[in-house]
Amino acid sequence: MLGARGGWRALRRCPSSIFSSSSSSSSSSSSSLPREQRVPAARLRVRQALGAREAAGEVQVQGWVRSVRSQKEVLFLHINDGSSLESLQVVADPSMDSRDLTFGSAVEVRGKLVKSPHKMQNVELKAESIRVVGPCDALSFPLKAKERHPLEYVRQFPHLRCRSNALGALLRIRSEATAAIHSFFQDNGYVHIHTPIITSNDCEGAGELFQIETSNETQESAEKNHFFNVPAFLTVSGQLHLEVMAGAFTHVFTFGPTFRAENSQSRRHLAEFYMVEAELSFTESLQDITQVMEDLFKTATSAVFSRCPRDVELFHKYVAPAQKTKGRLEQMLKNKFVTISYNEAVEILKQASQTFAFKPEWGCDLQREHEKYLVQHCGEVPVFVINYPYDLKPFYMRDNEDGPQRTVAAVDLLVPGIGELCGGSLREERLPFLESRLQRLGLSDAYQWYLDLRKFGSVPHGGFGMGFERYLQYILGVDNIKDVIPFPRFPHSCLL
Amino acid sequence: MLGARGGWRALRRCPSSIFSSSSSSSSSSSSSLPREQRVPAARLRVRQALGAREAAGEVQVQGWVRSVRSQKEVLFLHINDGSSLESLQVVADPSMDSRDLTFGSAVEVRGKLVKSPHKMQNVELKAESIRVVGPCDALSFPLKAKERHPLEYVRQFPHLRCRSNALGALLRIRSEATAAIHSFFQDNGYVHIHTPIITSNDCEGAGELFQIETSNETQESAEKNHFFNVPAFLTVSGQLHLEVMAGAFTHVFTFGPTFRAENSQSRRHLAEFYMVEAELSFTESLQDITQVMEDLFKTATSAVFSRCPRDVELFHKYVAPAQKTKGRLEQMLKNKFVTISYNEAVEILKQASQTFAFKPEWGCDLQREHEKYLVQHCGEVPVFVINYPYDLKPFYMRDNEDGPQRTVAAVDLLVPGIGELCGGSLREERLPFLESRLQRLGLSDAYQWYLDLRKFGSVPHGGFGMGFERYLQYILGVDNIKDVIPFPRFPHSCLL
Repeated sequence: MLGARGGWRALRRCPSSIFSSSSSSSSSSSSSLPREQRVPAARLRVRQALGAREAAGEVQVQGWVRSVRSQKEVLFLHINDGSSLESLQVVADPSMDSRDLTFGSAVEVRGKLVKSPHKMQNVELKAESIRVVGPCDALSFPLKAKERHPLEYVRQFPHLRCRSNALGALLRIRSEATAAIHSFFQDNGYVHIHTPIITSNDCEGAGELFQIETSNETQESAEKNHFFNVPAFLTVSGQLHLEVMAGAFTHVFTFGPTFRAENSQSRRHLAEFYMVEAELSFTESLQDITQVMEDLFKTATSAVFSRCPRDVELFHKYVAPAQKTKGRLEQMLKNKFVTISYNEAVEILKQASQTFAFKPEWGCDLQREHEKYLVQHCGEVPVFVINYPYDLKPFYMRDNEDGPQRTVAAVDLLVPGIGELCGGSLREERLPFLESRLQRLGLSDAYQWYLDLRKFGSVPHGGFGMGFERYLQYILGVDNIKDVIPFPRFPHSCLL
Repeated sequence: MLGARGGWRALRRCPSSIFSSSSSSSSSSSSSLPREQRVPAARLRVRQALGAREAAGEVQVQGWVRSVRSQKEVLFLHINDGSSLESLQVVADPSMDSRDLTFGSAVEVRGKLVKSPHKMQNVELKAESIRVVGPCDALSFPLKAKERHPLEYVRQFPHLRCRSNALGALLRIRSEATAAIHSFFQDNGYVHIHTPIITSNDCEGAGELFQIETSNETQESAEKNHFFNVPAFLTVSGQLHLEVMAGAFTHVFTFGPTFRAENSQSRRHLAEFYMVEAELSFTESLQDITQVMEDLFKTATSAVFSRCPRDVELFHKYVAPAQKTKGRLEQMLKNKFVTISYNEAVEILKQASQTFAFKPEWGCDLQREHEKYLVQHCGEVPVFVINYPYDLKPFYMRDNEDGPQRTVAAVDLLVPGIGELCGGSLREERLPFLESRLQRLGLSDAYQWYLDLRKFGSVPHGGFGMGFERYLQYILGVDNIKDVIPFPRFPHSCLL
């Protein structure tokens, strides 16, 4: 488990010799200890202890008890501190047992790391002392030892469910996926831009908006005198702001919360969710965009799979129907994503033997059932659908100037089990095209600044957005989107 | 300039031989080119070109023109693509000049990188062709060639100011600082948690709140039937949510937007700003918290200084009073931060020869003028002030059980020129203490979940928050907080 990132730099009072990986031995707090003190115990996280070699020095591990097994000759504990799915086995003299040493209690164990006789683990901790730091009221604690609680059950306890195996694994994966996405963009020369959360821009109907007022404003005064002088909303997309920045930095990205005031009680929607968005200047074709989408997807997923294999395995084994998810993902990482045009998609749907609730017709949006069929038709792999009808898409998408069925250079990425995961397009960089389109829509005044950008060194550019929760659902095979966020809101949560 | 991060992986069609650093040569899009095509031009970002060696192959660089100088024998261009402060010098035959080749226009230049005869640059690009991709209407473009526009001036053009040197440098630094902060926590085994933006929790009066409604709700219907069943606000702090997570993962952090509905028209406040917050379980003393604050600060700042030295230099030279900022920062990075207690702080203030508008008195909050004096008194370095009066601080801070002047284990970090940069505390982990305090405040019901956490393996823990914009202001010496965010709102912005 101690990979490239295992050798945390902040090891406190930790002799570096006990690590199998060559971890940094710089320790900032050790210098503040009095010199006359005996060599203190190395304070290790569970993940570090599990990756360490047998060693002579005393170590100290802190965490929460996951199991207690008291035998005549020996006391076994498993303790977990959230640094990994695996717990550390502690072997102690039965005299160290106490009434407070229960499932869920917090303990501090000092002792020596010794080679474990068991195959499943490298080392175990031979305890010299066990101190219960925080007892746990076992009767009222909703998590029980050795039970595999279903996600629906733990969802009722938003303040405690992170101590279950599944949610622990999920949030470690979410953290690693976040880091992997940041790294992808940094490694590729993108500048990270914090686009505004409060905005007056609705990105042209991307969704229902949440409006914002100061909490002591009445509706009447609010109408006359907004805090920001104009009505302000929670962002639905940072795209237009990112376009501004792509005109200066060439490659930019953002990764933050976005909001929709709709449908939030379904298994498929959230009122607050995270979106990865990127914009690129000097594009040559829509393929410049789909290539980045595919690279991002594969790079991040490979990183997550290699950094937390056990956590991912837990989902593929126990949460998602195992074979289905695993097979799909292996295929996904190996093969090039399929690309079909909207025209081709409509033809495929028309020729389908299946009857759809919505009849497939050129010029209509693809429905959930259509997306599902297309993905199946292409072999249950991610599918780019490109070049959508001009009239279906917002004003900023680039006119393909084809005919008679006019399209724009838009793309959606459809994935098995989820449907649309990413959406993107080339943006209309040509002033005359944009001017006439905005004029027809009566939006010229509101978007004067956007037209302005086309007067001052405007270049072909494009971008995309990817829903982060849907991404996690896809790679982990999680059905309900509420299970991939740290704090679910529905049903009503004490922690909203 | 090509440091550890200079060799971006996404170099497209780029022969690796021309780089001084051994950059990865894997190129995902080159494989899609037809085989019969001649070896295509390596497409380089300006930063890559500036760090490259002289080379035989043809390269292609795209960017915006920063200067044009047409002489009888030779045409000089400087082009910039936002990847670095420095522009790339292009040397061309005067016949390649055109009317559209003006300051601000976007160009694509093909040619060879050759050793530059000038000392200031390593290489220059000898142009074989120059194509104007997007002309620039020089008359109406608010930025002018060779002018150093003041921050107040460019603030009027939120959609264009990122193309000025100062804002370009600022946003590159902001991006690198963000990355450095993420890395600090990842390298030290912290799990990244996305704490909720929409919340019903006000973190006990941390500030004025923004309230949220769906945009088509009237005030009347809103009162009866909130979207989330309860009034919902924009978060002022993720602390309480992070505490939940620290009880599972031991070390957690968040880095996202927070909101205050107050004072947003001053130079010192924003309605929307970014905050770094961390929580640690199994703390031994407040020093565990201040140590992480200091380490974070120094690690992030060193990383920023080494990754974008020229950008930082621009601020220290032209934006901030040079000597002052530089001297302060060198001191800051070398020395241990000073720590004084609140009691000591009050004594220092009482003994000051200076007269304060607010008379310093035990039990009163430290005012801006007091903070300023304390920082001066300690030698213009960062100062931790610890152990504040019990009655000044919110219920969750840990009782020091001292007397007769009872204090809590709280800490503020004061820095020169800014005042309070970070705030933190040990949290009250002891159920009886917390129960009686919440009862006195009439908050027991609202915080039942928080009390719950103290029943199930509660451990000593603590945490802190750092204002990201104030951090940037401090390390760059920027006076107005509006100048360190990507999109300023005030005065009224077309881009709100």
